Amino acid sequence: MELNLKKLSEILKKNKINNINYTVPDLWFLENYKIDHKFLPTREVMVNPYDFYSAVIDEYLLPRAKDDIDYSLSYSKGHNIKSTNGEWIKRQVLYSMMIRTESSYDSDRSYSLDISNIDGLKETGTFVKTLALLPFLKRLGVTVVYLLPLSKYSLKDKKGELGSPYGVESFTKLDPLLKDTMTGTHMTLEEEFKCFVEACHILSMRVTIDIIPRTNSVCSELVRKHPDWFYWIKASEYKKYKVPKVEGLGSCLYPSYDLMDKVYESADVIRHIKMFKTNPKDMDIEKWNKIKGKTNEEFIEAIEKEFDLKIAPAFSDNINDPQPAWTDVTFFRLYLDDPVKTRDLLKIKHNPYILFDVAKSNLYPGEKPNKKLWDLIASIIPYYQTNFGIDGARIDMGHALPDDLLKLIMNNAKSIDDDFAFIAEELNMANDKMVKENGYNAMIGNGFWALPRVREGEFKRFIDNLKNKMVPCFASVETHDSRRCTNRYGGRKLTRFMTILNYFLPNAIPFINSGQEIYEIEPMNLGCDASLSDLTVLDKDDIFYGKLALFDKYAFHYRGEHSKEIMNHLVDVIKTRNRWLNSICDINYYVPINFYRENSMVVGIGYYNDKGKMLIILANSDMDNMVEVQASINILREKTGNDNMYGRLLYSTYEFPRNFYDFNINQDISVCLNSGEVKIIEI
Amino acid sequence: MELNLKKLSEILKKNKINNINYTVPDLWFLENYKIDHKFLPTREVMVNPYDFYSAVIDEYLLPRAKDDIDYSLSYSKGHNIKSTNGEWIKRQVLYSMMIRTESSYDSDRSYSLDISNIDGLKETGTFVKTLALLPFLKRLGVTVVYLLPLSKYSLKDKKGELGSPYGVESFTKLDPLLKDTMTGTHMTLEEEFKCFVEACHILSMRVTIDIIPRTNSVCSELVRKHPDWFYWIKASEYKKYKVPKVEGLGSCLYPSYDLMDKVYESADVIRHIKMFKTNPKDMDIEKWNKIKGKTNEEFIEAIEKEFDLKIAPAFSDNINDPQPAWTDVTFFRLYLDDPVKTRDLLKIKHNPYILFDVAKSNLYPGEKPNKKLWDLIASIIPYYQTNFGIDGARIDMGHALPDDLLKLIMNNAKSIDDDFAFIAEELNMANDKMVKENGYNAMIGNGFWALPRVREGEFKRFIDNLKNKMVPCFASVETHDSRRCTNRYGGRKLTRFMTILNYFLPNAIPFINSGQEIYEIEPMNLGCDASLSDLTVLDKDDIFYGKLALFDKYAFHYRGEHSKEIMNHLVDVIKTRNRWLNSICDINYYVPINFYRENSMVVGIGYYNDKGKMLIILANSDMDNMVEVQASINILREKTGNDNMYGRLLYSTYEFPRNFYDFNINQDISVCLNSGEVKIIEI
Repeated sequence: MELNLKKLSEILKKNKINNINYTVPDLWFLENYKIDHKFLPTREVMVNPYDFYSAVIDEYLLPRAKDDIDYSLSYSKGHNIKSTNGEWIKRQVLYSMMIRTESSYDSDRSYSLDISNIDGLKETGTFVKTLALLPFLKRLGVTVVYLLPLSKYSLKDKKGELGSPYGVESFTKLDPLLKDTMTGTHMTLEEEFKCFVEACHILSMRVTIDIIPRTNSVCSELVRKHPDWFYWIKASEYKKYKVPKVEGLGSCLYPSYDLMDKVYESADVIRHIKMFKTNPKDMDIEKWNKIKGKTNEEFIEAIEKEFDLKIAPAFSDNINDPQPAWTDVTFFRLYLDDPVKTRDLLKIKHNPYILFDVAKSNLYPGEKPNKKLWDLIASIIPYYQTNFGIDGARIDMGHALPDDLLKLIMNNAKSIDDDFAFIAEELNMANDKMVKENGYNAMIGNGFWALPRVREGEFKRFIDNLKNKMVPCFASVETHDSRRCTNRYGGRKLTRFMTILNYFLPNAIPFINSGQEIYEIEPMNLGCDASLSDLTVLDKDDIFYGKLALFDKYAFHYRGEHSKEIMNHLVDVIKTRNRWLNSICDINYYVPINFYRENSMVVGIGYYNDKGKMLIILANSDMDNMVEVQASINILREKTGNDNMYGRLLYSTYEFPRNFYDFNINQDISVCLNSGEVKIIEI
Repeated sequence: MELNLKKLSEILKKNKINNINYTVPDLWFLENYKIDHKFLPTREVMVNPYDFYSAVIDEYLLPRAKDDIDYSLSYSKGHNIKSTNGEWIKRQVLYSMMIRTESSYDSDRSYSLDISNIDGLKETGTFVKTLALLPFLKRLGVTVVYLLPLSKYSLKDKKGELGSPYGVESFTKLDPLLKDTMTGTHMTLEEEFKCFVEACHILSMRVTIDIIPRTNSVCSELVRKHPDWFYWIKASEYKKYKVPKVEGLGSCLYPSYDLMDKVYESADVIRHIKMFKTNPKDMDIEKWNKIKGKTNEEFIEAIEKEFDLKIAPAFSDNINDPQPAWTDVTFFRLYLDDPVKTRDLLKIKHNPYILFDVAKSNLYPGEKPNKKLWDLIASIIPYYQTNFGIDGARIDMGHALPDDLLKLIMNNAKSIDDDFAFIAEELNMANDKMVKENGYNAMIGNGFWALPRVREGEFKRFIDNLKNKMVPCFASVETHDSRRCTNRYGGRKLTRFMTILNYFLPNAIPFINSGQEIYEIEPMNLGCDASLSDLTVLDKDDIFYGKLALFDKYAFHYRGEHSKEIMNHLVDVIKTRNRWLNSICDINYYVPINFYRENSMVVGIGYYNDKGKMLIILANSDMDNMVEVQASINILREKTGNDNMYGRLLYSTYEFPRNFYDFNINQDISVCLNSGEVKIIEI
């Protein structure tokens, strides 16, 4: 099987330009590549980029590839693995990554992150450059690269310097910014993505993508063919467009049916609905035909000018959510008629409109599904499966899709790869049953919110609650939408503590948000559990001060003084996790550890195995105080019949690098836990 | 007059290469050059080097040039200034500079100073690059660029990474390392030096050079033609060669005649003299003719191999000086016979030899001067006058030259430019009369040693002593041979204090050793009043740790946090000096200021002028304690008849930036002087 990676390496070597002043963070240079290089005291390495990236392929990736495996297929298909119906995801370690940001670096040290730097090279992230990060991810124990959106997004009225990848303009085109310059015209962007997936598969990492079927860019390429798939308002009234406020109701309410009469009685809702117009094509087909030859942005502008029409922005499906309208995206018209359940509440003549019920189309379906659109949406994942061999997907706002559409999406994907995994964008831990019934293999949950709240008791509550969940959720302390863990109480100590502990939570999937592992403090977005104060955490003279990776050019601080610390801690942690993986991923082998004196900031997690061994993880989430605990391991002793009076300390946050050693225990375990310490003991 | 500088700028613009990743320290970018540039937070500016250096010429230098002046001549001749017989030097501010080091900079930030960097550009200093430093020197008030040796030096068995410019191999060839790469073959090194002198002259700065007539490289190009001008020993005995030790005498003695019989009685001296052999040509003319076609280094090696002969290293002319032999240089045979005064003391048959008396040929001349050599030596300065328009020279070891040779050197120079100035390498302050009689205009003196010794009383003693000197000496706190002032008691504070005060010392010439003005701490050499501990003052991870500019690739720390401080202090200081220059440079207008309570660490310097004004400089050299002083200005009042009761504070080290203000005085001046403070008051 000819690997795309091999072709890529050859192109890099053929295109090589000499005398390029180029550095990468030394964290990208973990392997001892046999190329000219120089370590600088700035924690950088000076390299020729063509040499470097081809060395990553030739020296790290290709030697790990096996001849008889087709890495371009999904991991399960390429390796002929018996399908688990996507349940493999339970045993993985996820790393959330945005290609555009992940391999961003000011390689010419010009103190600006350039699309084309002094040497004409791209300093924002590309698939090709991200290959160099894979040795680092491997050391973190990552087994799934969880990609944030990759599709071409709209640049019209874009947010920030680059625009948001969530404002999708085209489902099947890739974001052209991700194209590397070193390969020039000798390789397409699609081929470069293929190389990336191939590389992940060679390293036994699966790849999942993030698809966004519920919303779409207000500048979508679909407008041209299907103006009736969108909601329209007068362009001249655009500035008056806002989320309707339902008087007499509280803030941010789930749009349950008992509230809907209040909604449709609201004067502001009526005002809002009256703003909607018919689509431009239906308004004047002749005029429409005149402009439809224009290119996309011009086309959207022509509609505004010629028809005084604009696509209406989407907004939250919760009633009276304080979030303003999402000006870059709109909802698709998933049904061609009004919601069945609420249509009688609206007495006035009207055009298709956006409202809480319309948005939440799983709760409020219509009678006439927009079949063509559904088919299109259900064809997105197959496109990425067939062309790139991806292994799973997160479905953005999946909770707001009609059940039948969700089923269609899943069935289409499963018909190509029955081991394809689905991740629900479900933050509410109470919805695990629904998530399970909908066919998802995992849910995000609210770990990112609960786990860092160690003083408030949320940490302990979250962990205690995990065992009852019907699908595993993410063991995460941050997401691309949230505040950084290192910017919370406990700082780096908390991040280190949580990142390590997360590898051992029961019925949970360790999840690292890119940057977390190097103690990044600037969030990528302020979407959820973050605030404006997060924008001022960097030094004022940092070139990324006030920038958000989701909208701006941003490079992580790979050269931070402590950027290798977590990686170094994880080396042995991962060995232990892998040795104990069967027990950790099977709730039947899990035994909560109780303490004689309760402490809301200390948790104990126990596992046993069929060989009569037990693994005990003790963790003190108090970032200020040490604690002495006496943990009862009676249940584990009963389950295993193991009455060994010697334990072996496999890891302690404060004895690093660790000397494995045996220590005396009694029937119980009595240990001191330093502030922010995780201790792992095997008996 | 077509300026070489204009041609240089055109070449730079024509040769321009785009996309070069290049920075200079922001200190080199004091002018607001109209080129693409970017200030970085590292106190650097990113520029295209071709743009930058041509902008220095086009925007800073050329607009200051006048059409009717020939800048290629000496300053006095070009400006038709009436000759003062070199006495102009008394009114100047000197800046000692080694081109090789001055404009050194790691412009590609590769953490190595490269002869050819990533872009093929030279990172060590060149004449072309040094042009960019001239605006900075101008702000320091510099009016004479005092150049350390520029000639081609020997690279055989070189000291350090680059070799010492004091091991001259050719008097009239320039050090090829100083050639810039940006001009390529479009300009010669000689033309580039011309450009540099032109630029200095345009800025009303004179240029002096450092000539080395007493010693020469052991690999001199003169060996080929004149092997008899050198002293020879057996190559196979080279390792045994050492400075002879005269038993029964003390250490480091001046070789006065009364000691010479002891010298010639010494067994070790006899052993030493016996080592010398005849020169290779006289030994075997046929063999000599066979090898003389070889190039220089090979030629010297062939002599070693074929004749077993090697040129004998020079050593100090003081008896029992602890310094080891100077292995890179030898003495010239200035006389073809033995010293007249001591020849009878030596009883054995011998070949020409080096000894303390031979070395000190002014005290111990022979009868047969080596006329051809003398003529050659006396032609060095004329070469630099005729070709480059230099304005003065320091004569290295001039004190060891026969009087007649010295006269010949001076007369030759004066016949070309009767305003040519001579600086004596005389450190002993007591020799001022001899220096004067020999025709020098200034002497170095021992300010570099005395002035920083503020606690030992040397500071005050030196200043008190100045008024009696027959030639002005340097007001310096360091030289290229000594410890850095910033590395002495008082540190930066002392350097700032001394640098400012030096502009006002009576009968002295302010002298800045390059790097002093930016608080450099690593010396350039350990030659004099420095020790091995000076080699460890930089951070261990500084790429110049343990390096000496005289031997190694070295760049000053232009990006230091305080590197602009002294320059900023000097702005107004220089204005005051210039306004008062006639009085400061005329000892008749000088009045020492006395204090009612004596303090060995406080000095007062007074000047008056013909308009009845007085200038009072009060300086507290105590770097730890403040002091209250009451200074009597009675003599100044008498001299001027000025009984003004208001003084104007023109400068205070601690009120910076300064507000000029008037303040009440009585008959006396009572002020507080902070530690390391200079106060300048005009009445």
